[in-house]
Amino acid sequence: MSEVGVVPMEELRKLSGLELMHGLIAGKYPPPPIMRALDFTLDRVEHGVAVFSGDAKYDHYNPIGSVHGGWIATLLDSCMGCAMHTTLKPGQGYTSLEIKVNFVRAVLDTTGRVTAEGRVLYAGSRTGTAEGKLLDANGKLLAHGTTTCLIFPI
Amino acid sequence: MSEVGVVPMEELRKLSGLELMHGLIAGKYPPPPIMRALDFTLDRVEHGVAVFSGDAKYDHYNPIGSVHGGWIATLLDSCMGCAMHTTLKPGQGYTSLEIKVNFVRAVLDTTGRVTAEGRVLYAGSRTGTAEGKLLDANGKLLAHGTTTCLIFPI
Amino acid sequence: MSEVGVVPMEELRKLSGLELMHGLIAGKYPPPPIMRALDFTLDRVEHGVAVFSGDAKYDHYNPIGSVHGGWIATLLDSCMGCAMHTTLKPGQGYTSLEIKVNFVRAVLDTTGRVTAEGRVLYAGSRTGTAEGKLLDANGKLLAHGTTTCLIFPI
Amino acid sequence: MSEVGVVPMEELRKLSGLELMHGLIAGKYPPPPIMRALDFTLDRVEHGVAVFSGDAKYDHYNPIGSVHGGWIATLLDSCMGCAMHTTLKPGQGYTSLEIKVNFVRAVLDTTGRVTAEGRVLYAGSRTGTAEGKLLDANGKLLAHGTTTCLIFPI
Repeated sequence: MSEVGVVPMEELRKLSGLELMHGLIAGKYPPPPIMRALDFTLDRVEHGVAVFSGDAKYDHYNPIGSVHGGWIATLLDSCMGCAMHTTLKPGQGYTSLEIKVNFVRAVLDTTGRVTAEGRVLYAGSRTGTAEGKLLDANGKLLAHGTTTCLIFPI
Repeated sequence: MSEVGVVPMEELRKLSGLELMHGLIAGKYPPPPIMRALDFTLDRVEHGVAVFSGDAKYDHYNPIGSVHGGWIATLLDSCMGCAMHTTLKPGQGYTSLEIKVNFVRAVLDTTGRVTAEGRVLYAGSRTGTAEGKLLDANGKLLAHGTTTCLIFPI
Repeated sequence: MSEVGVVPMEELRKLSGLELMHGLIAGKYPPPPIMRALDFTLDRVEHGVAVFSGDAKYDHYNPIGSVHGGWIATLLDSCMGCAMHTTLKPGQGYTSLEIKVNFVRAVLDTTGRVTAEGRVLYAGSRTGTAEGKLLDANGKLLAHGTTTCLIFPI
Repeated sequence: MSEVGVVPMEELRKLSGLELMHGLIAGKYPPPPIMRALDFTLDRVEHGVAVFSGDAKYDHYNPIGSVHGGWIATLLDSCMGCAMHTTLKPGQGYTSLEIKVNFVRAVLDTTGRVTAEGRVLYAGSRTGTAEGKLLDANGKLLAHGTTTCLIFPI
């Protein structure tokens, strides 16, 4: 990941959420800095859905020998927030008010590539909610979460 | 942060949580890899309390112009989990079953150094809970969370 | 609901979770007191799934004109906890360590009968998680939640 | 509790949250129906704080022999939501978007009177958060929670 960046607000205002996401996947917009720091990618979006993936590895370990819950939370926060973002029209923005994440199986550097799938549960005019699942390559559930988002004009 | 590492299980078994934490602060044990990836440090521990800090910066930004919620969740997960860990005796281990994080103010690269303070709310024989607060240098609340931990023999 | 009750521990120990649930539905065991206080019923169970229903009504209103979130949380806690319970063998018990509930649409006395469907997401030997959805008669989502359970010998 | 009721919207619009709460305590407004169904009371409010209490009793039991988590969640939802409500001016309303509740000790009919103390953590113009603690008569922590609220003009 050579070049990272943030999409300027003037540009954000003109884009639907889905246009922004498609632009990120196509490389029209640079990946955000957090993706370089934690080495994960946005793979796929559709209305109400966003899918990220990353390699579970030693670089993300906590002191007690497994991938830190924060790495897992970052992937789930990303997929849930972006799933919500795909439902927004130009001129709408959002922020995640809260996330809740359950860690159900240890993630190790032997776990391999993991996929974080976010899906909108409720899309209202002022708020929305989404859920996310972190799965290993065999589809085994590693973690899951929910989020509450605030939607507002930008 | 030149050298990172994980504390081996044989060593972990012999240590109380507080001994491990003091060893991490003193540099007796290397900082875990996630601390290098996300650039934060463990500053202070006492029984039931753990305090981390880090600089809010561009390297942790999401695509829409603020520090990614995952960085915030990582600091809160760390301080809450380690607060719980400080209450454990040698031969006891723990894992975080879930975290919930509220993002109440945007964290920007102008926010400066932030402090994540974890505090145990309940310490039982099989489970425990803790809360965490992320504060800026003026003590303003940026985010807060809670966690549920499982405690078990190792 | 004339008669309510609690299943004695000696009896609980001999039953699988599914046997207990089937016994509650068949009237072999009395409905628990909370079901009378909040007027809802257990309708259907299968391995990993439990479905309750109740009438949204004025008796459950908060001071500001809608069904209290506590009534919604009670139905979701019930369906998620019982979904987990259906996976337990005789000699296993469980307790809910935490619930998280999102209220996505107001529930009013005109909403009619609502259904709370709980579904296990993860069933381990020591812990498990489940999700729940509260739906109106047309299948519209009113609220949703997740729970973390501790499993232990009884 | 002979008479229950809901405060009409025309009246709600004219009141600050604190005026409404003081009116409920003083009996100027009737207790809401849920308080009769689950037998709890609003005892004390100040800016950012609301305290309820209730007797843990058999009428609120689940099938497996303790007070149902839903009763606990109702008291915590009430104290956290009302704590937020005390910060609102006339013309402002709120709704709870989500609650998260940790059940840390079993509540039994021998537990006696329990107190639910809600406290605002963040009060913004569009959203706010609060925490709640459920305590027994000796101040022992039984459960705790957090909530996210949406604030809007009414």
